[in-house]
Amino acid sequence: MTSPKVRVNAFSVSLDGYGAGPRQDQDNPIGSGGLALMEWIFPTRTWQALQYHEGGETGTDDRLAAESLADLGAWILGRNMFGPVRGPWPDDSWKGWWGEEPPYHCPVFVLTHHARPPLPMKGGTVFHFVTDGISEALERAREAAGDKDIRVGGGVATIRQFLQAGLIDELHLALRPVLLGQGEALFAGLDLPALGYEVARQVRGERATHVSLRRSPRTT
Amino acid sequence: MTSPKVRVNAFSVSLDGYGAGPRQDQDNPIGSGGLALMEWIFPTRTWQALQYHEGGETGTDDRLAAESLADLGAWILGRNMFGPVRGPWPDDSWKGWWGEEPPYHCPVFVLTHHARPPLPMKGGTVFHFVTDGISEALERAREAAGDKDIRVGGGVATIRQFLQAGLIDELHLALRPVLLGQGEALFAGLDLPALGYEVARQVRGERATHVSLRRSPRTT
Repeated sequence: MTSPKVRVNAFSVSLDGYGAGPRQDQDNPIGSGGLALMEWIFPTRTWQALQYHEGGETGTDDRLAAESLADLGAWILGRNMFGPVRGPWPDDSWKGWWGEEPPYHCPVFVLTHHARPPLPMKGGTVFHFVTDGISEALERAREAAGDKDIRVGGGVATIRQFLQAGLIDELHLALRPVLLGQGEALFAGLDLPALGYEVARQVRGERATHVSLRRSPRTT
Repeated sequence: MTSPKVRVNAFSVSLDGYGAGPRQDQDNPIGSGGLALMEWIFPTRTWQALQYHEGGETGTDDRLAAESLADLGAWILGRNMFGPVRGPWPDDSWKGWWGEEPPYHCPVFVLTHHARPPLPMKGGTVFHFVTDGISEALERAREAAGDKDIRVGGGVATIRQFLQAGLIDELHLALRPVLLGQGEALFAGLDLPALGYEVARQVRGERATHVSLRRSPRTT
C-alpha cells in the first residue's frame, strides 16, 4: 500500500506561466481572463457530473480530471481560492464560490489570517479555517484524510508556499495554449529542480497538455 | 504575394518559462542545462542536414524545424547568441559558435555596443555588427533580405526587445517538458495580449509542443 500523498492536480497554467489572471473579484474567481485556463475541464464528463449534469466528453482530459478527484480525504485551499473577501471576515455570509453543496465532499482547510468557526455544508464538505500557516493546515488535513491523499487546490500563492517548503509530492499541471499577459505567475523565482522536483510524465489531452512533476526521493 | 515577415522560429522554452539556462559560457552556449531545451531538434533530419549528416527523424518536429529555415533572407542575433565574449572585442578571433561555415548562409546582423568590421564566413554567411539598436538592425536586415523573411534568432533578451517594440510578426515556440529552475525568463513582465499577440496555432511534435503566436492586425 502506498502512503498518502500531498497532491496538486489539474492546476491550469497559461502559456505565459500564469495560474490566475489579475484583479480577482466576485465575478472573476480566477481573475480577469482566468476562465480560459479552465476551458479544458468544463467539457469533460467528470466536470459535468460535478455540476449534476449528464453527458460530457470522455478522453484524456476527462481521465485526468477524474484522477484529480480520486482517493482524496482532505483539501487545502488558500484564502483567495475560497473567496474574494479580504481582511477580517465581516460576517459568516460568504460560504465559498460553490453554492450550498460544494464539490469537495470532505474536510477542506482554508488558510487565512482571520479565525472563523467551521462551516459545514451540504454533501459532506466542511470548511475549516486555519490561522497558523501551511504546516498546521497540512497536519490537520493529514489527520482528517486518514489513508487518503490530500489535495492542495490552490491558488498560485498557496501552491508556491507548499512547493517552496518541499511539501508537495506530486504536481499535475494542465498547460493551456492561451496568453493571459498578467496575473499570478506560478514559476517566477521558484527553482523547482533545486527543490527536488522533476518532470515525471507528459500526456497530451484534447484541450490541454498535462505535465506531472514529482519530488525525487534523493531530496526527501 | 505575402510581404516579408519578421519571424522568431523554433525558439525553445522550458516548462518553467526559461529560454536559456543561467551562466552562459564558452562550454554552455545556452547556459547551464540549456541544451535540454534543444533536444527536440537534434534528432531531426533538418538538423542533421545542417551538420552535413545523413538521416535523422522525419515527423512533426522535423517539419517545423524545416519551416523555421525556409524563405529566410537575413537573421538578427543578440550579442550573447553570437558568443560568450562581453564588452569591447579584444580582437577578431571570436567568429561565433558555429565554426568556419555557419548554418545561416545569408547576412546575419549581430546586436552589440562595440563596433567591429563585417565578418564574411564560408557558405555565404556574413556577420554584420550593428551598434545602433534593434531598429537599425531591422532596417539593415530588411534591405538585405529583399522579399524574403527576417528571422530574429535570439537570445531571450533580444526577442523580448523586439516583442516589446511590436516588431515580431510571428513567434514559433517549441515548448519542452523540462524544468531549468533558473535562467532567462521569456515571458516575465511581458504582456503579450496587450502588445497585440495571440495564439494562432498549436501542433504537437514528438519531443516538443509547438505554439505559434501572431500579432493581430487590429494593433498594427
